[in-house]
Amino acid sequence: MNELQERILRDGKNLGGGILKVDSFVNHQVDPLLMDACGREFARRFASLGATKVLTAEISGIAPALTTAIHLGLPVVYARKTKPITMPDQVYLTLAPSHTKGRMVELIVSPEYLANNEKVLIIDDFLASGQTILGLARLAEASGSKIVGIGALIEKVFEGGREALKSLDVQIEALACIVSMEDGKIVFSE
Amino acid sequence: MNELQERILRDGKNLGGGILKVDSFVNHQVDPLLMDACGREFARRFASLGATKVLTAEISGIAPALTTAIHLGLPVVYARKTKPITMPDQVYLTLAPSHTKGRMVELIVSPEYLANNEKVLIIDDFLASGQTILGLARLAEASGSKIVGIGALIEKVFEGGREALKSLDVQIEALACIVSMEDGKIVFSE
Repeated sequence: MNELQERILRDGKNLGGGILKVDSFVNHQVDPLLMDACGREFARRFASLGATKVLTAEISGIAPALTTAIHLGLPVVYARKTKPITMPDQVYLTLAPSHTKGRMVELIVSPEYLANNEKVLIIDDFLASGQTILGLARLAEASGSKIVGIGALIEKVFEGGREALKSLDVQIEALACIVSMEDGKIVFSE
Repeated sequence: MNELQERILRDGKNLGGGILKVDSFVNHQVDPLLMDACGREFARRFASLGATKVLTAEISGIAPALTTAIHLGLPVVYARKTKPITMPDQVYLTLAPSHTKGRMVELIVSPEYLANNEKVLIIDDFLASGQTILGLARLAEASGSKIVGIGALIEKVFEGGREALKSLDVQIEALACIVSMEDGKIVFSE
């Protein structure tokens, strides 16, 4: 998606070590019109899957998942990283390594909102190692739901996430695929 | 706003002790079309303020703030509760008591995205004691910005937040104002 790629080139910061800072339009500050355009594009690419629910992980996944859900007209569930007091005692919980926190974090979904036989579309901001998305897939599978598609705003191809998700055997879409961040440059595929 | 009030009566859960569970359409699971309608309504009510930025706090504030920002065409910043590695060392940071966590939490905004002289519209899911919103207002003031309006999806009038925010002297809008949650009932104002 050209609009997102151009924005990454203009406002993204390559901090080295494979870290891409997009805090001015995706994380921390969000450009709502860009995010809406990304949601529309995900909705277009996944329109034919018959998804019944969008699933993401708090915090940075919420914005792209919400705009995708608006354009698909589907409810969106965001996995919590801490269990709020309003959640029942019995939950779906899994652990996933956090890239930015350098430790394992919990991903928690209430069985109230992930029923048996849902067709789940996972949307997140980044596809890097794929571990957060694999965690979301485990939660969905624990509930008896089926993953039907995976979308990420930005894929860091060199971290191998697409390979890690291969066993799920579903359509994977990234709106900007970065193949290299070496020498301070950001290089997209195609 | 009738649509939100009706949804609260239908799907909200009065857990007692003033706790309203809206996890099926606001927190955890989000109804994107309802949230879009709420954002449109906030945009309508605050249209004349000349706001330059929408400010909220992660996590539950992100959805209503984003849809409001889409309809106003403004960037949205969400205060982080933990400092990500992409944030500079020097930040705006304040403490606010968390209702649901029973302890103080940090609210952190990078000076990169809250410049001097911004006109800030604060949007959050709940207006209860008003302490989170006061924290956001302190961050905005520390940056030299001016608060121009405050919007919350749901106000728990009996917790006195509107009184606590009085000194800010700005327009405050809530889309559903709950005056009582006693005896398992939910009573709205008007």
